[in-house]
Amino acid sequence: MTLEPIATFRSPLSEKFGLPRQSGLAPSLEGEIVFLPDYCDPSFVRGLEGFDRIWIIWSFSANHPSDKPSRPTVRPPRLGGNVQMGVFATRSPQRPNPIGLSCVKVEEVESGKGKLSIRVSGADLMDGTPVYDIKPYIPYCDSFPDARGGFVQEHEWVTLGVDSDGAGILKKHFPGKDCEAIVQLLSQDPRPQYHSDPQRVYGMAFGGKNIRFRVEDGKVYITEVR
Amino acid sequence: MTLEPIATFRSPLSEKFGLPRQSGLAPSLEGEIVFLPDYCDPSFVRGLEGFDRIWIIWSFSANHPSDKPSRPTVRPPRLGGNVQMGVFATRSPQRPNPIGLSCVKVEEVESGKGKLSIRVSGADLMDGTPVYDIKPYIPYCDSFPDARGGFVQEHEWVTLGVDSDGAGILKKHFPGKDCEAIVQLLSQDPRPQYHSDPQRVYGMAFGGKNIRFRVEDGKVYITEVR
Repeated sequence: MTLEPIATFRSPLSEKFGLPRQSGLAPSLEGEIVFLPDYCDPSFVRGLEGFDRIWIIWSFSANHPSDKPSRPTVRPPRLGGNVQMGVFATRSPQRPNPIGLSCVKVEEVESGKGKLSIRVSGADLMDGTPVYDIKPYIPYCDSFPDARGGFVQEHEWVTLGVDSDGAGILKKHFPGKDCEAIVQLLSQDPRPQYHSDPQRVYGMAFGGKNIRFRVEDGKVYITEVR
Repeated sequence: MTLEPIATFRSPLSEKFGLPRQSGLAPSLEGEIVFLPDYCDPSFVRGLEGFDRIWIIWSFSANHPSDKPSRPTVRPPRLGGNVQMGVFATRSPQRPNPIGLSCVKVEEVESGKGKLSIRVSGADLMDGTPVYDIKPYIPYCDSFPDARGGFVQEHEWVTLGVDSDGAGILKKHFPGKDCEAIVQLLSQDPRPQYHSDPQRVYGMAFGGKNIRFRVEDGKVYITEVR
């Protein structure tokens, strides 16, 4: 099956570092689904205003280029990176077909001047990601709050606090919702597994700026925004 | 993006007629995801036993061949077939990329003798459908019971009853769960829109047999199973 993109995702996150590990982890993070010229007719989304949420079907290929052949197992970061799980029991990008699936909140459908886009929040897509399909979220066939969530449910993330001085620095550089989104992203601990040097400074790109921080005793300290 | 099938879906439903219009509408309907030879290593599904549900990403192409160019709007059967809705506001198969998305219940993972398969229930895939990806259902990022479901939520299906004599005929021909599944399928009213001739007899193929029925005053009458 050959798929052609229908849209491109726009996000303040232009690098893999800092990207939420799943949709919904940074609910204040806004992004935009910008339809390609062939799909700019607002008729394509008629009726979408009645839905709170949509599914985005996208491709990992742009974010996670991999020439490695697909292997049957992966090491989920949630399990500390040292337990092998079957690729079809995970949401890992390292899968036979690099299809991503994310449920996001619809903020606004915008159309006009030959442009059609959907502003959404809570996405885990990197800037520039090709989008292949959008489907409305239908609770009666998509929502199963009591379904057992396997190892994902059994191993919750330890989230980090953000130092209050740091939160102040962020507020100066980023208005309202962006600041909230950055705190959510940092609290998810974007560091690679096994990194625990409290002096090491990391940089997260966000909206053209770079947020420099370090992590000590479960807390994020912002060192600089540039 | 080019995708290669990883599995084939096996269902007692070999024709489009009777197929549930969404996953979950016939919860007793069983089916099987049979992995292709390259994916028969049970390592591919290690850890899946901890999840109650999975997503199947599949292709409409086998079930709903269409040479028509993609149009911006479709007429959802739920709206009586006479209202145009944007294709991205529907789950219609007539969409730019023919990707299907279904949440199903995992009944059992079966492996051995060079075969790997997942028995599931509640699917809306036709027999022979190519499967491209399987992902675990993770409630915290997939389940939003209170999300507004647009026109789908606002227009509930009128379901049909099944005549008790008919249910008896079905029980003779189909053991336990299959009989339940058939009643669920018939109660969803498989007839095309605008069909209302109470004498017209329809045939639904199921597991190699054909269930003949007619519909009068909101009730299904089984005329024959052969």
